[in-house]
Amino acid sequence: MTQVASPVSLTAVDAPGQPTPSPELEQLYRGFERELLVPLWTEISGLMPVHPQSKAAPHLWRWQNLLELADRAGHLVPVGRGGERRAIALANPALGGRPYATPTLWAAIQYLMPGEDAPEHRHTQHAFRFVVEGDGVWTVVDRDPVPMTRGDFLPQGGWIWHAHHNAAQHPMAWIDGLDIPFQYATETQFFEFGRDAISDAERISPERSRAQRLWGHPGLRPVSVPGPQPSSPLLNYRWVDTDAALTDQLELEDEGFPGTVEPGHAAVRYTNPTTGGDVLPTIRTEMHRVRRGTETAPRREAGSSVFQVFDGTGTVTVGETSWRVERGDMFVVPSWEPLSIRSEASASDSDSGALDLFRFSDTPILAALGLDRVSVDAGR
Amino acid sequence: MTQVASPVSLTAVDAPGQPTPSPELEQLYRGFERELLVPLWTEISGLMPVHPQSKAAPHLWRWQNLLELADRAGHLVPVGRGGERRAIALANPALGGRPYATPTLWAAIQYLMPGEDAPEHRHTQHAFRFVVEGDGVWTVVDRDPVPMTRGDFLPQGGWIWHAHHNAAQHPMAWIDGLDIPFQYATETQFFEFGRDAISDAERISPERSRAQRLWGHPGLRPVSVPGPQPSSPLLNYRWVDTDAALTDQLELEDEGFPGTVEPGHAAVRYTNPTTGGDVLPTIRTEMHRVRRGTETAPRREAGSSVFQVFDGTGTVTVGETSWRVERGDMFVVPSWEPLSIRSEASASDSDSGALDLFRFSDTPILAALGLDRVSVDAGR
Amino acid sequence: MTQVASPVSLTAVDAPGQPTPSPELEQLYRGFERELLVPLWTEISGLMPVHPQSKAAPHLWRWQNLLELADRAGHLVPVGRGGERRAIALANPALGGRPYATPTLWAAIQYLMPGEDAPEHRHTQHAFRFVVEGDGVWTVVDRDPVPMTRGDFLPQGGWIWHAHHNAAQHPMAWIDGLDIPFQYATETQFFEFGRDAISDAERISPERSRAQRLWGHPGLRPVSVPGPQPSSPLLNYRWVDTDAALTDQLELEDEGFPGTVEPGHAAVRYTNPTTGGDVLPTIRTEMHRVRRGTETAPRREAGSSVFQVFDGTGTVTVGETSWRVERGDMFVVPSWEPLSIRSEASASDSDSGALDLFRFSDTPILAALGLDRVSVDAGR
Amino acid sequence: MTQVASPVSLTAVDAPGQPTPSPELEQLYRGFERELLVPLWTEISGLMPVHPQSKAAPHLWRWQNLLELADRAGHLVPVGRGGERRAIALANPALGGRPYATPTLWAAIQYLMPGEDAPEHRHTQHAFRFVVEGDGVWTVVDRDPVPMTRGDFLPQGGWIWHAHHNAAQHPMAWIDGLDIPFQYATETQFFEFGRDAISDAERISPERSRAQRLWGHPGLRPVSVPGPQPSSPLLNYRWVDTDAALTDQLELEDEGFPGTVEPGHAAVRYTNPTTGGDVLPTIRTEMHRVRRGTETAPRREAGSSVFQVFDGTGTVTVGETSWRVERGDMFVVPSWEPLSIRSEASASDSDSGALDLFRFSDTPILAALGLDRVSVDAGR
Repeated sequence: MTQVASPVSLTAVDAPGQPTPSPELEQLYRGFERELLVPLWTEISGLMPVHPQSKAAPHLWRWQNLLELADRAGHLVPVGRGGERRAIALANPALGGRPYATPTLWAAIQYLMPGEDAPEHRHTQHAFRFVVEGDGVWTVVDRDPVPMTRGDFLPQGGWIWHAHHNAAQHPMAWIDGLDIPFQYATETQFFEFGRDAISDAERISPERSRAQRLWGHPGLRPVSVPGPQPSSPLLNYRWVDTDAALTDQLELEDEGFPGTVEPGHAAVRYTNPTTGGDVLPTIRTEMHRVRRGTETAPRREAGSSVFQVFDGTGTVTVGETSWRVERGDMFVVPSWEPLSIRSEASASDSDSGALDLFRFSDTPILAALGLDRVSVDAGR
Repeated sequence: MTQVASPVSLTAVDAPGQPTPSPELEQLYRGFERELLVPLWTEISGLMPVHPQSKAAPHLWRWQNLLELADRAGHLVPVGRGGERRAIALANPALGGRPYATPTLWAAIQYLMPGEDAPEHRHTQHAFRFVVEGDGVWTVVDRDPVPMTRGDFLPQGGWIWHAHHNAAQHPMAWIDGLDIPFQYATETQFFEFGRDAISDAERISPERSRAQRLWGHPGLRPVSVPGPQPSSPLLNYRWVDTDAALTDQLELEDEGFPGTVEPGHAAVRYTNPTTGGDVLPTIRTEMHRVRRGTETAPRREAGSSVFQVFDGTGTVTVGETSWRVERGDMFVVPSWEPLSIRSEASASDSDSGALDLFRFSDTPILAALGLDRVSVDAGR
Repeated sequence: MTQVASPVSLTAVDAPGQPTPSPELEQLYRGFERELLVPLWTEISGLMPVHPQSKAAPHLWRWQNLLELADRAGHLVPVGRGGERRAIALANPALGGRPYATPTLWAAIQYLMPGEDAPEHRHTQHAFRFVVEGDGVWTVVDRDPVPMTRGDFLPQGGWIWHAHHNAAQHPMAWIDGLDIPFQYATETQFFEFGRDAISDAERISPERSRAQRLWGHPGLRPVSVPGPQPSSPLLNYRWVDTDAALTDQLELEDEGFPGTVEPGHAAVRYTNPTTGGDVLPTIRTEMHRVRRGTETAPRREAGSSVFQVFDGTGTVTVGETSWRVERGDMFVVPSWEPLSIRSEASASDSDSGALDLFRFSDTPILAALGLDRVSVDAGR
Repeated sequence: MTQVASPVSLTAVDAPGQPTPSPELEQLYRGFERELLVPLWTEISGLMPVHPQSKAAPHLWRWQNLLELADRAGHLVPVGRGGERRAIALANPALGGRPYATPTLWAAIQYLMPGEDAPEHRHTQHAFRFVVEGDGVWTVVDRDPVPMTRGDFLPQGGWIWHAHHNAAQHPMAWIDGLDIPFQYATETQFFEFGRDAISDAERISPERSRAQRLWGHPGLRPVSVPGPQPSSPLLNYRWVDTDAALTDQLELEDEGFPGTVEPGHAAVRYTNPTTGGDVLPTIRTEMHRVRRGTETAPRREAGSSVFQVFDGTGTVTVGETSWRVERGDMFVVPSWEPLSIRSEASASDSDSGALDLFRFSDTPILAALGLDRVSVDAGR
């Protein structure tokens, strides 16, 4: 069989650690190309670096730009079966135009016009929604309508039916996070269409989801549902609880007790109440609060993160890049890039006096395989 | 060496499955006694029954009697180092006068007079407190003052320092549950004295424990304390949350959704938020609510339970025994005895219209070893 | 109801930590007795000691005595349905004549005459057999005939059918270990009779059990049986493997490499190949080899053990008691009693030059609940 | 900031599920490009397919070709610090010339000339070696020399020091498997150089590795090393054991007992003896034996595999592609492609009468995250 245009292409170079170029070496390399082989010695520094060298770049997306384009899409692009969702994904500038915020994580703004429904489906990709502003939409999860308002976090475990419904008179935006790039890389994706329309009962405005009524009581679980569940059965985490937890941590710090991550830096992790572990098997989610005038210690983690500013203003430094950030802005932290967050010293009248950031990361993947690593430059 | 008075004593009997009595057999049995040996064939039916045949008996203790005796002890018996606690334990009538509610569980009423302190200590025995009525005491756990009021549940993991302080002008009673008989049987107990007095800072009335402020937010955990903990770091479960969870389950049932254990029977389990499992390694704790006029299906479980009526009135049947019960009454359910609970059809004006029961059991021990079994007579 | 002869009996004593005797106190104690209550303050030192104070005593049983009585029983006591097994249990002299080697463990010699069968049954009690000498019997486990010869260890997970068959022309003895006292204490026992006779196919002498053929290859498991199993699917551990493993450890030590527990002391643990953990959920089993002239460091463990000398001679010290031991002798180590083993410095011609001891303990129970503790006096 | 050459490039197309092309839509898409955004609706079918659609292609590499090129490299390319290894990787023809056998797995032939050493290093990538023919090399793992001969399998957990040494008078080839592409995708790689040369003691030919002496006894583990280990402490799995396990399975099948995967198809999995699970956290490894004249049922698995024929001849079908295979040939099975294996009905004189295949896959990654799926077409 003639091998037309092998994808392998090798060049002998005169460089340290490389074999000396020669006609024989060239012939060997042609043999490798013909047989679809690549030697380690030409690739090792890229494949097996001393520490992670991310393909992704630190990057910031401004919420106002995201919102404006989403709104234009709201008027131009219908939502329906096939396209499934009016979701617009962050494409990391260093990842070749793919809709990947990081090599493993998808982050998108989703937008629903008044009265619109996004049809029901399910997929193995794990997902969540986070609401930086607005209200009026609910997500219907296994027929349970789950309301969404500012500060709410909604996990959506893989292979669970879900649809969206905007019952309000105004459009609503929120962000979606998924492990789409990870499942694309590992080729583990399954997808199935559900009902084309939700029922009338699912259109009645819920105050609390049924999931919240069963699972939203601290430290308690229904005896009727024993055992661990693969993803959180608690389908919404209300802002009132998250805010209270962060407030409590900072007050404990003021009283001289432990609880914060570091001085002036409170953080809570969303957990699966049936395991105490991460809310989703592949995605860690957290809310961080940095007190006014506080700067966090530079921290590197194996694996990547995406942040959205929930409230306040400040300056974020990722590797060599710094941005001034405000509500809704989203940015990515590639693997092993140091991250530091500084809250504005004097806040404007309107903000709460702290910088609140929602974070999601691929850490559970790494932790499940023993590949997670952290390095904190506490000595700064 | 002459063996004086061997504890082994064997009698040859003429019975099915037993060897025929004879002088030789008698001689053999004397040999067994001399060598401290016991054959299986004389013991097997007791040791290896077809299903558990509990040594314990079903029994009920009336709260008014417990309270009255505890109050008398409050005036006669000081609390201090050595005796450690003014705790008075239920002694199952079939367990030989030992202070065991069941073969594995200790249940006691504890009583503290105004201004009294119970000194600090720690022990490997896992413990909890549950408050059926009253207030004014707090338990100081690792220097964290934890308030106690009606309906509150306080787990107390093994080997954690703790003391009690009554800051009120009146006495207070509550119940203690521990795995003392289990650790006595397995001989795993360690004990250490702590400080003789708690500090002034620990005497200031807390509204919420520090533990509650860190761990009492549904589905959220502090990022600063990762990983599973052997027992719950949430040191008090407030009645307001427990009541809301039970109310929600019954309302979901009214709306046609799942959530209750069986029709009219809601139940929540107290969990360790770092694992989603039982709040203590050896003790399961739950709160059950049986709607007015409801009777639960007879249920047998391997392992034993102790119940305290928290509210309402009704009739409880354990094996062949039935009692009419009301607030504070405590009763034991021996291993594999069927239990059924019937709430009063027409309640008095004062009660909430349901029968609420606090339950604790040794199920986590059995579950950890694969020995848990349940049989529900649903067909009744 | 008149309470005739309450099992509770309390005496007011004038002692430190006890309330001062008075008529009122006596009256209180009579109230406790009437209501079946026992105060903590009279019981705490026994129930909650500073460290475990075992109810059991160190004790030694001589193999020759066991064997002689078992043989007499072989001629007097038939084996059949009802009695089930010709097993004769060690009764710890401090445990009131109960057939308990320790508070949690049963240890017995079992004896089968030529041609005899012990009928099939199953029970939740976990069991094993260990063969100190002899051969000719096989245990039929889920219809798989498993041969037994000197040095072999056969685990028998709970609720698995099993019978015994002596195919030889001579009697055979072996030891059984079970968690009967533990399951008696926790009241978790279930039992079921099986077939009255095994089939002809199960009487054909096996060279290797089917279990060994599937599971007896180091580090390998059949792809057809995935996942963890509650107890080991490997139904026999042959002496040739155990001996080789111990020999290897001591040779590694001679070469200067780690592997032994301490100098001159090799030990292997029998494991469940589907988990790497203990072979049975409630019983740990190990084989220890102490080089000639070696003395092990005194070691205390929470929980109890039973040992059988497999080979060699030496001196064993448990707490204050010492015995000279030889092949087959069995002894118990109560909870938290220090144990030290000294192998004979000059061995007789017949032994292998080391002291080999089979050990079983209740450690998995403790470990599953976080109650295991060890203290080694290495500084001796 | 002028965005020069955004990597995002979007084209409005007139297709089902896509918004109708219009100047406004074009303008929206230009906005997306400018802001580095990509909509879901243009990408969903590729990103979220109904089932995995692998980017990789089924492909076969002939061992003779691999060996010949490796031998030529042996004469042209030195082994030393920097290049580290004379390893030549399979480059899946559909993966753009990258040295990836599949999207997650690296597979290479490694070659060492007589007397050569490959220098010591360690990396987070998990690795193994498998020997299809030859001998004379040992891998020095944490200073433990581990011999390699035909049929041997050597796992190499992440972050463990290792070097190679060819002590023979002839070159030796073997295959390496690693999770390099997976760790490249997730950006979790760390790497460190070790000693430049191994010691003289490590050059002395071992008969058995120290690891094998400690861990290579079936069902037994050294008491001195408790607890689970992240990767297998058993550093070599000898062919004699693997062959015996496969032989036993087929003999059990002949006798009418279970054990094989399906009729005529035996398989063993290499396990970590401290967990019973996969030998490496990210790579599953197995040896399969297909009886002469047997065809396996088509089987799809989420995730990808690489096979090497160890012995025998037969025909392999992956999706639409079939190859006749013989010793040493390597092929890849992309995610969700059906695989069927047919052993030659009449074998040549030289072979053992069965088709033996070594397999490795990324299944542990999927299983740890709940993403593993299998579909077997048993009804064929």
